[in-house]
Parts: sequence; C-alpha cells; structure tokens
Amino acid sequence: MKKAQGVESDAFGHALLDHLEGCADHELIERDDGYIAVSVGTETYFAEPSDQQREVVDRAAGRVLDVGCGAGRFALYLQERGHEVVGIDVSPLAIEVCRRRGLRDARLLSVEEVDASLGGFDTILMLGHNLALLGSARGAKRILKRLHKVTAPGGRLIGDVLDPYETDDPDHLAYHAQNRSKGRMSGQIRMRVRYRRYKSPWFDYLFLSREELEELLEGTGWRLKEIIARYGPSYAVVIERLAGS
Amino acid sequence: MKKAQGVESDAFGHALLDHLEGCADHELIERDDGYIAVSVGTETYFAEPSDQQREVVDRAAGRVLDVGCGAGRFALYLQERGHEVVGIDVSPLAIEVCRRRGLRDARLLSVEEVDASLGGFDTILMLGHNLALLGSARGAKRILKRLHKVTAPGGRLIGDVLDPYETDDPDHLAYHAQNRSKGRMSGQIRMRVRYRRYKSPWFDYLFLSREELEELLEGTGWRLKEIIARYGPSYAVVIERLAGS
Repeated sequence: MKKAQGVESDAFGHALLDHLEGCADHELIERDDGYIAVSVGTETYFAEPSDQQREVVDRAAGRVLDVGCGAGRFALYLQERGHEVVGIDVSPLAIEVCRRRGLRDARLLSVEEVDASLGGFDTILMLGHNLALLGSARGAKRILKRLHKVTAPGGRLIGDVLDPYETDDPDHLAYHAQNRSKGRMSGQIRMRVRYRRYKSPWFDYLFLSREELEELLEGTGWRLKEIIARYGPSYAVVIERLAGS
Repeated sequence: MKKAQGVESDAFGHALLDHLEGCADHELIERDDGYIAVSVGTETYFAEPSDQQREVVDRAAGRVLDVGCGAGRFALYLQERGHEVVGIDVSPLAIEVCRRRGLRDARLLSVEEVDASLGGFDTILMLGHNLALLGSARGAKRILKRLHKVTAPGGRLIGDVLDPYETDDPDHLAYHAQNRSKGRMSGQIRMRVRYRRYKSPWFDYLFLSREELEELLEGTGWRLKEIIARYGPSYAVVIERLAGS
C-alpha cells in the first residue's frame, strides 16, 4: 500500500488488535474480480517463527528494517537477539500492536516513504510474502532503488513471496490471464483486506516467479544471491546489495 | 430468497458441492452494511443431527416439507426414518447435492412458491435458522398463510431462529438500530452469501425474538405451541396449525 491508512479503513490492524485482545474473527482477502477467501489467520501474525522461518530470518545481520512488520513477529524475534530493528507498516493498529508487544521502534510508514531519516540498514526484511509489497513492475523498480539508498555496503534484502504460476486453480489462472491482457504482471493481485465491517483500500500485491523477481532487480542495485527456502508455492530469497549506484 | 437462483450466483450451492467433492473453502456471509464473517462451515450442512437437534426434528410427524433443505441433513434423517419428505431450496446446486445424497424428492423451489401441487403436509420444517426465511414482517404473514394452506389439520411447523437481541456486539446493535429507523424489524438482515468468486443475490433473513415471532403468527392460522430447545442465542419452536382459515 502506498500510504498509511486511517484507523477506520484499517481492516488488517483491527484483526491484529482483536487477536491481541483475545477476540479475533477471520481476516479475509478480497480480490477485485470478486474472489474472496479467508486469510492465513491472525494467529500466524503472532506466532514464533518456525524452524524453517528461523533459518531464513537468521540470515539478518546488523541493523534491520522490517517492511510490513504486521504484529511484529520477525522484528521482535530479531530485537530479542540483539538487533536494532525498525518496523514499518501502513496499518496504524499494527504499529500499535507492535508497540504494545515491546517493539522499540515501530513506525507508521509505507515502504514508498523510506528515506535517510530512518538511518542506514544492513538488512531489509520483507517476509510473510512481503516481497509482494513491491506492488507492480514499476513500483518494484522505484522501491528497490529507494531501499538501496538506505542500505549499507554489503547489505542484503531477505524476503519471500508466492510464485503465482504454482497453481492450477481455474479462478486464479483466469485472473492471471486477464492481468496479462491488461499489460499487468500475471501475479499482480489487486486486493483489499476485509474484517468484520472494515475494508482496507484496494492495493496491488505482486506475486512473482523467481525469473520475474530477477528481472525486476536489474538496474536497481540488487542481485538475487540465493533461494534459501521453499514452502508450498512460496520461496524465500537473499538478495544482495551491489556496490555503487 | 424469493426465487430460485441461477448456478452462476449460487454461492451457497457451490460451497456445498465443493464440500461433497472434498474441496470446500469457507462460505461467507456479507451484510449490506459491509460486515462480513465466515459462516458456520459447510461441514455443518452435512453433519448428522446432534442429540439436541434430534429432539427437535423428532417432533416431525407424517409427510414433511423441508424448507431450505440445504445439503439435506434433516430431510435425509427423516427419510431414513420412514417419513415421506419433500425438500425445497432456491439453490440449484443444493438440490443437486440432496439428490446425489439420496433424497428422493428434492425440488428447486422457493418457500414463496409452495402450493397444492406439492400435495399436503403434516409437518413443515424450517430448521438451521430457516425461520429467518420468513424474511420480513410482511413476507412472514404471506408465507405463513401459504404454508397453512398446504398443511393438514393437526399439522405443525418446526423451526428455529436466532434471537437478535441476544448480542452485545456494537456492530450488530448499530445495524438493528438502523433497521428500526428505516421501519424494518431489528433483526431483518439484508445479506448475501459469498464463496470464492460467487455472490448470491441479496436477500432478507429475519432474526426474531419469541415475542416478535408470536406477533407474526397472529392471523396466519398458526400459534406458537412450545419452545423445545435453546442453543446459544437461538431457539427452536413447535408452531401448531389452527383449524380453519
């Protein structure tokens, strides 16, 4: 999402806050073709990282920017291990939840607004499918260059995302085809979060194959270093910062 | 719902059919104020009646009309016990599911279309909250009179419904207040079913207190005989057919 949301449209944050307060219902994901489904479940946003997720997140080094920190699961894990972590999210209530849970630096901020005022980072974290926050081909280039500027030499970006081609669901395949016919990337999902009576603004969430990701990285000062995990249709990567630019 | 739906808008039926075929996702309920929630779960529509539900449905006698038969859980239960049962539903795929499961007489028909061509009944069944299919104060009078005509002397209507006043959820209370300000009954819920990319038409579903139910029965040839069960905010009743009219 481009900008921080108001509380009234903060469907995601309301779900997190209700979970924290013990009364969460199901968070839903609605796509702009009318397809609607239950999301991963708010407990996921609060869970301790699994063994597999630890292998991914343990690749973090130094000062960390957690993009789309949600309820703070990865940020808190790293903070407890001595990292200085800045968590950002466009959900005001997610930020509220992170603060209540003890994240020392949680800020209401979009990845599109990241700049030098946050200081420099050694690691950018985009887990929980948050590489999809790159949003679109054009947005991805812009965001990746912006993140490059706040990352120190030798830094890395650790993220994961769903590969949209790993499906045989006719609804999803039809959506991808429609996307391509409109000049969008196959996995560019226009969606919003719904929770009880709350509706987030519509936003683009970009599911990417490994090949597509590599293309987007070109010319942005980043290079795919390694695929470090696969889980179902999703995969986690370490992207290394190139010197210069 | 007033009329049988087309398959393309049969969100409920698609959920049932997917369940029968082993691949059901969550069926959702969306209210016209934007409130959305996960429904009871398709497995509920296929479950054997619980002990408490048996005490209710065992009040059925003779030939039975099951209004809104869904996947046929109550209709099949009674058919297996020797009753002649006609199941009706506005969902074409629900009817398909009932037939596949062995219900001998399942028809795509709205309760508003019930007439003498179906023959006479000793029991009308409106379980699974299906008293709410009465829809509105005016609709209720019309439907109850129609059902009276196809019910034999000494017949009964067995149904259950949610009491809308048994909540302290501010979203629901606000919805009730808004309803009253528009001259609607508090529990008259304008809603639709959503499932994957399917959306049912909007329809009115009428949650009722016992007092409201008794008022609606007046002048229709029916009288509340007994509350036979309570479960959470819901209750089941036997309504007896009065002679005449």
